[in-house]
Amino acid sequence: MQKEISIHSIEQVGQNLANLDLKRELRRGIPEVVLGEGKTSRDIVKIVLSALKMNSAVVVSRIRREDLSTICRALKRRRNRVEIGKNSTTILARTGFVKKRSSGGKIGIISAGTSDMAVAEEARLIAEAMGCSAIVRYDVGIAGIHRLFPALKEMIAASVDAIVVVAGMEGALASVVSAMVNVPVVGVPTSVGYGFGSAGLAALSCMLQSCAIGLAVFNIDNGIGAGAFAALIANRMASNSNKIKI
Amino acid sequence: MQKEISIHSIEQVGQNLANLDLKRELRRGIPEVVLGEGKTSRDIVKIVLSALKMNSAVVVSRIRREDLSTICRALKRRRNRVEIGKNSTTILARTGFVKKRSSGGKIGIISAGTSDMAVAEEARLIAEAMGCSAIVRYDVGIAGIHRLFPALKEMIAASVDAIVVVAGMEGALASVVSAMVNVPVVGVPTSVGYGFGSAGLAALSCMLQSCAIGLAVFNIDNGIGAGAFAALIANRMASNSNKIKI
Amino acid sequence: MQKEISIHSIEQVGQNLANLDLKRELRRGIPEVVLGEGKTSRDIVKIVLSALKMNSAVVVSRIRREDLSTICRALKRRRNRVEIGKNSTTILARTGFVKKRSSGGKIGIISAGTSDMAVAEEARLIAEAMGCSAIVRYDVGIAGIHRLFPALKEMIAASVDAIVVVAGMEGALASVVSAMVNVPVVGVPTSVGYGFGSAGLAALSCMLQSCAIGLAVFNIDNGIGAGAFAALIANRMASNSNKIKI
Amino acid sequence: MQKEISIHSIEQVGQNLANLDLKRELRRGIPEVVLGEGKTSRDIVKIVLSALKMNSAVVVSRIRREDLSTICRALKRRRNRVEIGKNSTTILARTGFVKKRSSGGKIGIISAGTSDMAVAEEARLIAEAMGCSAIVRYDVGIAGIHRLFPALKEMIAASVDAIVVVAGMEGALASVVSAMVNVPVVGVPTSVGYGFGSAGLAALSCMLQSCAIGLAVFNIDNGIGAGAFAALIANRMASNSNKIKI
Amino acid sequence: MQKEISIHSIEQVGQNLANLDLKRELRRGIPEVVLGEGKTSRDIVKIVLSALKMNSAVVVSRIRREDLSTICRALKRRRNRVEIGKNSTTILARTGFVKKRSSGGKIGIISAGTSDMAVAEEARLIAEAMGCSAIVRYDVGIAGIHRLFPALKEMIAASVDAIVVVAGMEGALASVVSAMVNVPVVGVPTSVGYGFGSAGLAALSCMLQSCAIGLAVFNIDNGIGAGAFAALIANRMASNSNKIKI
Amino acid sequence: MQKEISIHSIEQVGQNLANLDLKRELRRGIPEVVLGEGKTSRDIVKIVLSALKMNSAVVVSRIRREDLSTICRALKRRRNRVEIGKNSTTILARTGFVKKRSSGGKIGIISAGTSDMAVAEEARLIAEAMGCSAIVRYDVGIAGIHRLFPALKEMIAASVDAIVVVAGMEGALASVVSAMVNVPVVGVPTSVGYGFGSAGLAALSCMLQSCAIGLAVFNIDNGIGAGAFAALIANRMASNSNKIKI
Amino acid sequence: MQKEISIHSIEQVGQNLANLDLKRELRRGIPEVVLGEGKTSRDIVKIVLSALKMNSAVVVSRIRREDLSTICRALKRRRNRVEIGKNSTTILARTGFVKKRSSGGKIGIISAGTSDMAVAEEARLIAEAMGCSAIVRYDVGIAGIHRLFPALKEMIAASVDAIVVVAGMEGALASVVSAMVNVPVVGVPTSVGYGFGSAGLAALSCMLQSCAIGLAVFNIDNGIGAGAFAALIANRMASNSNKIKI
Amino acid sequence: MQKEISIHSIEQVGQNLANLDLKRELRRGIPEVVLGEGKTSRDIVKIVLSALKMNSAVVVSRIRREDLSTICRALKRRRNRVEIGKNSTTILARTGFVKKRSSGGKIGIISAGTSDMAVAEEARLIAEAMGCSAIVRYDVGIAGIHRLFPALKEMIAASVDAIVVVAGMEGALASVVSAMVNVPVVGVPTSVGYGFGSAGLAALSCMLQSCAIGLAVFNIDNGIGAGAFAALIANRMASNSNKIKI
Repeated sequence: MQKEISIHSIEQVGQNLANLDLKRELRRGIPEVVLGEGKTSRDIVKIVLSALKMNSAVVVSRIRREDLSTICRALKRRRNRVEIGKNSTTILARTGFVKKRSSGGKIGIISAGTSDMAVAEEARLIAEAMGCSAIVRYDVGIAGIHRLFPALKEMIAASVDAIVVVAGMEGALASVVSAMVNVPVVGVPTSVGYGFGSAGLAALSCMLQSCAIGLAVFNIDNGIGAGAFAALIANRMASNSNKIKI
Repeated sequence: MQKEISIHSIEQVGQNLANLDLKRELRRGIPEVVLGEGKTSRDIVKIVLSALKMNSAVVVSRIRREDLSTICRALKRRRNRVEIGKNSTTILARTGFVKKRSSGGKIGIISAGTSDMAVAEEARLIAEAMGCSAIVRYDVGIAGIHRLFPALKEMIAASVDAIVVVAGMEGALASVVSAMVNVPVVGVPTSVGYGFGSAGLAALSCMLQSCAIGLAVFNIDNGIGAGAFAALIANRMASNSNKIKI
Repeated sequence: MQKEISIHSIEQVGQNLANLDLKRELRRGIPEVVLGEGKTSRDIVKIVLSALKMNSAVVVSRIRREDLSTICRALKRRRNRVEIGKNSTTILARTGFVKKRSSGGKIGIISAGTSDMAVAEEARLIAEAMGCSAIVRYDVGIAGIHRLFPALKEMIAASVDAIVVVAGMEGALASVVSAMVNVPVVGVPTSVGYGFGSAGLAALSCMLQSCAIGLAVFNIDNGIGAGAFAALIANRMASNSNKIKI
Repeated sequence: MQKEISIHSIEQVGQNLANLDLKRELRRGIPEVVLGEGKTSRDIVKIVLSALKMNSAVVVSRIRREDLSTICRALKRRRNRVEIGKNSTTILARTGFVKKRSSGGKIGIISAGTSDMAVAEEARLIAEAMGCSAIVRYDVGIAGIHRLFPALKEMIAASVDAIVVVAGMEGALASVVSAMVNVPVVGVPTSVGYGFGSAGLAALSCMLQSCAIGLAVFNIDNGIGAGAFAALIANRMASNSNKIKI
Repeated sequence: MQKEISIHSIEQVGQNLANLDLKRELRRGIPEVVLGEGKTSRDIVKIVLSALKMNSAVVVSRIRREDLSTICRALKRRRNRVEIGKNSTTILARTGFVKKRSSGGKIGIISAGTSDMAVAEEARLIAEAMGCSAIVRYDVGIAGIHRLFPALKEMIAASVDAIVVVAGMEGALASVVSAMVNVPVVGVPTSVGYGFGSAGLAALSCMLQSCAIGLAVFNIDNGIGAGAFAALIANRMASNSNKIKI
Repeated sequence: MQKEISIHSIEQVGQNLANLDLKRELRRGIPEVVLGEGKTSRDIVKIVLSALKMNSAVVVSRIRREDLSTICRALKRRRNRVEIGKNSTTILARTGFVKKRSSGGKIGIISAGTSDMAVAEEARLIAEAMGCSAIVRYDVGIAGIHRLFPALKEMIAASVDAIVVVAGMEGALASVVSAMVNVPVVGVPTSVGYGFGSAGLAALSCMLQSCAIGLAVFNIDNGIGAGAFAALIANRMASNSNKIKI
Repeated sequence: MQKEISIHSIEQVGQNLANLDLKRELRRGIPEVVLGEGKTSRDIVKIVLSALKMNSAVVVSRIRREDLSTICRALKRRRNRVEIGKNSTTILARTGFVKKRSSGGKIGIISAGTSDMAVAEEARLIAEAMGCSAIVRYDVGIAGIHRLFPALKEMIAASVDAIVVVAGMEGALASVVSAMVNVPVVGVPTSVGYGFGSAGLAALSCMLQSCAIGLAVFNIDNGIGAGAFAALIANRMASNSNKIKI
Repeated sequence: MQKEISIHSIEQVGQNLANLDLKRELRRGIPEVVLGEGKTSRDIVKIVLSALKMNSAVVVSRIRREDLSTICRALKRRRNRVEIGKNSTTILARTGFVKKRSSGGKIGIISAGTSDMAVAEEARLIAEAMGCSAIVRYDVGIAGIHRLFPALKEMIAASVDAIVVVAGMEGALASVVSAMVNVPVVGVPTSVGYGFGSAGLAALSCMLQSCAIGLAVFNIDNGIGAGAFAALIANRMASNSNKIKI
């Protein structure tokens, strides 16, 4: 008799949800993201082409370096536009005929070392896929801290609504930035580093422990998550302004 | 000769920065936070009274439970208003004569178990100290997941601009919420739990690994940081609307 | 406009789930469990009395030792029956007038050292709260492995449908038992131990790594979870038999 | 003199156990499992052929991908039937002439992401090798939680006696399922994930910490163990019914 | 039918082992050890008195400091002799009327700091309970390495058959000793230390990683295990010599 | 015969070292340090008085707070001078009649938060016990980074020969300082912090991973070690200058 | 002036030690061990040939599998005898013309799984290089625990003086053996395993935590250290007997 | 309005810092270091040639072994001098026409095993790039501790101003050296080792926990940092002497 009840309850839930893709409806601000890791170049092309039928932009992260050009060529041949992240193997593919959508949102992206650039580019690509523009300043680590000030100044002047800080090694840059500005700051530790605290653990713990109140953190190397989160804030802000204006 | 140059450079930097409290100027959105831990009740009262001369609101976190009533009485005697977080030993002290400032910002706060409530209240108090209002729903864990839906519905209907999710044990609630809404979601793991992954490590790793793209995370039990961050977003949104309206 | 859709979707979900306590309906096989840790004896008594209005049995785990007799007296005064686990501070409270329900299910519980007994008793109490009977054999560690054989023999002869093995230190007992019987074996590592691998980590990793195929594991000291799981199997088996017989 | 006694005691034990393969006698419900990792394709074929002389089914896990087709061809050439797990390199080999044995047991297997499928298939193959049938639903993660309900409904309706939930990343799916059904749920964390909590540690700790009472856990990627355990329950249930019926 | 066989097999095993305490018969070289931790002084006295009926010596480790004198007085009142380890709360209790048995075995015990002495004394007491004599040299750390040489010289001259080295902090002393002598060396890391590698982890890893080939290691603070192991070697050596002589 | 050789070799070594306290002779720059932890106030007084017979200064670290005044009174009664570190329970005791020795060495000490002050004071006291003077600037964290510049300027102007940076939480201050000056910088992480990376692990890993080349690190809370090391450099520098001058 | 003293003291020490290879003199029981890892086959051959000029036996561990036959051929061509460990890439090289020296020592070596055999063979080869004979029994895991009894019986009957137990996965075998015999038992955890506790950590912690008193442990995969240690005991025992006999 | 202020403050800071490369001005004592890891040989050559336009020496660390000769040839072709570290892939490149600058500073470098040599060479190359000379003694581990004394004697006699000790495995050598000399000692743990504490963690914790007061530590394998730090001390000392002399 227990089973009857179970089935019944589940049935009610099931019926009402069956035709509903909650994620698609509620979160459509964030485009499809395909993890390239562990997939053949052929599979990736197939998935992207299929996803581009329903979405105007698709991000593919962590493609094997040797497959990068094959995949890009294959996508372009089908008249899609493809952008490759600098120093990275993450790409943003768009259907060729759709005009680039601009949300009006604006974020800043800062990275500490050249090795952190690939993760920062993930953040930029997903943000741009969401129609959000990004001011990027790379190689602004605390070992050359004076290079940081003009970068922050420019971002504040441009009214960015969130700043993504990407840093490996000790990851202190995110704390320093967070202590200096009054826009929401999002930290992304990277797996750059060696010895104790390597694989990003030093940078992660450093950002979580930040004595600057209000620094939000993403997992190690999760540029995509941080970029999407920052763009969500910026786009919301922009859409809010637009709504009111009209 | 090396020293001369060092002194010189530092001097330039020093001169220009000497009269500048960057943090005060740039981040004044976030009120003073006093860590009660390891301080006597007398010291805490002294610090709060002094801080209230320059700030309209001060948050004191992690007061020893046995000192709580002494401190509150002492602050009230000086005509300050004091609010104690539910189940917690964090307080919000305001000067009595200043009218409660409202920023127009609005956030949601959800916590999983009753034991997580103290951390959630930290988030609420700092947000309210920032003039941001909070819709709170506690005890909405995934073991009773159906209680989550009306809570989210109400928050979305009220147009909150960020949702803070506080959860211990496996911390899965933050992922579940993040997968269901399109406002920025901020997760706070708590140190509730036992055995492997205790002290909040299971919840922290769970939130960092979330397969729902775009969940920002704070350190274990850092309700203050998450509340301040969410209020920063909401207040910015509100101030933006106001600015445009006027 | 995004918000309208969000609200709408959540509304649909909300409406259908609002009057449904999924857990209560679907999982009612498992009684209410109250975590005593961090609660006053007065609160515990209040919660238990309230819970006993709707349930015939309530388990309270990890009561502070000094509160144990106060709580038990208070519950008995209200005509409830109370059983305290041996060596433990976990209790099983039942309403006095309801006849002890027997599910017909039968499990075995084995513990390695006397220090593991408290966790084993948690398993026994929750199983009995679920109407399942338990054959218990404590102090049967691998340092005296010959004591294990008669214990297993008796359990198999009594047709138990699951065996819970509770062991701290190196936790090898669970592997040894699992390699010797063909009923489902459930291991519970305990926090008994010292030095490297202490706090139950040696026993936990030992059970997870077991080279005996098919040993299911619960978190360190989680006697309640393991007892409930084993009783779920045994009760299902018994209810199955009964259903068919009639 | 000490030695005499030692020898004597051991001798007694030895004599009585010498001709007894406890594992074979007592646990024969679980078929032979060969770990492919670190073995040449030639050795694997030899071991499987030899094992198939005494067993009707053998499972070989973690074969090197490049050896997969060689091994399968070699086994088929000897008139054995071979099934390869989807997305996986685990195979189930059966002697060709024996009719597929059905125990009447029935389990459900759910996996969260496509990357978790290989581990889920391990569970399915061992269960089927034990004569137990499995209802499988893959790619049902909490990021698309509505897809979960019809899957659970179908499994409950089909009267499965245990559900195996395979999930990487934050592994929250096992908790969610466990909170919703009243059949025994067995969680298998997978090594899918990155950054903090990677290699399956987030999912493992999440499942061990589950606030849903009664979720049994297996080691990271141990689909074989979980499948065998679930099938043990289901087959026992089925054999129990059969016995009584006759 | 499966069950019949299981019972049968277990029965055979059971019958043959039932009257056999393997450990007592085979390992009687090592006396009874009672863990004082978590036991009341009354329970400890009861257990020791009972154990002394069948054994001439009992070691009780980790007695609460405040119970030490009560327990010793109670045991002496019953005409037992009691020795307390220096700086420690471990005791060796012997029946008063039995002459102290000497095995002829001889070991050396060295400890690095005064804080390591309590663990070293555990090793001494168990060794003496086994009839083995011990040459002890405490406070011989590598910060004053020249004090080490005369200590080693004396031990080698006295023909010890094993040396126990007890060291906390970086635990390097065990490596240094092991590199200098040709008797078996046994290292015991202690939980003395702070910061990274505290709780004995630095010393444990240091001893396990020793580049001096042939250093055997015991768990952190496990003086009893190391002392028993060293005495086992020395007693075996002595009994061997004696046997041959006679 | 093996033994003869062993004894012989050890004997040679022993004879030559027997009258040599290497540490005293070679390292006498560093005064006696007594660990207060785990010692009674009476023992501490006894040890200090005895040490002061041969040394002009003794540092006692980590005295229990409740014993502090008793110990200081007892030492002063014997005509010694005692200085207590600010916020700390570490003291510097000197014989009253000896004039305070000045080495001419000079170091800087910076700490990030008020909670780090106790560890910074350990560094100051040991340095002063070594005759080295210290310029101290406390509460100069990166959350108020502009306060750092005048502090560094002053230290460089005063020609300090090493700077000790004491910081908890994310410990980024040491990196920032190290990137800005050309004197040797020594970092001391403190155990101030919470959640992931607590107990000083975040600060330790942050300092070890510093992208500023040339930051030397001490263990968590090891103010004594860092202060002694910095003073060793500064005193050597000073003694070098002096030697040449004369 | 400090320097003079330092130099002087060091000089004294230096002069006396200069012509003394302590290790060679004192520990010559243990042969030269060459770590093959990271060396070219050519370098290995050169080192071994050079070592064989002064030693009758040399052990080379962890040779790259592809270099194994090249190295063996090169050594044999120079008229040395070479033995390769089963399943392993560790070899024992002896000069061809020296008669195999027998110490009279005897040890037992047991391994749990076939994957542990390579480490067990390291123990056997070093023991044999030390002139000690070894009784080996491989594939005697606790999943087939009955196979253990005849193995132990044979070893006890043969009067082995130490038993090396090599086990991966949960490593419980060492505990079980240690609880059953009265000869010194030495455990070697291996890196065989997966998921939580992999890389040998489960087996290592299991052995360190063993509730069987007196189990000595070596680092993960350190078969050489354990074999050398066991042989040291056995050879000492044998040499002792011989000395007395004569 | 908030933004205006932010921009303003940042502007002030920006203007004053814009033309200032603090690091170059203040720290020019340390030459450019290029991380070879993850860069193509072509990129490395380009970066080095460009850096050599402004610096007389550049260190490139962790070049891929197969690129080493290509890079060196390319640099020499442009008339630069190149030195490769022994056993290592770190190089020191200098412009050919500049005379090798000598600072007069002198340090000692000691390494424990041959495998630690590559890291020790990093320290030597950076020190020499800074004009500091180095006395090196490799293969002086504690397993042959007597070889240490003449090495230390020579270094003290040569008046080195700092000693770098590079050690893997248990890393005890740094403690031993630090306890014996009165010059500043800097420890570098290396990633040489296996099993528990591998990847340098045993050596790192050992050095951080050193009971010899005043041992400064660098991260695992960070020979460059330690060499630069030691040279900074030595050069400062030398420049100090020189200044005074003139």
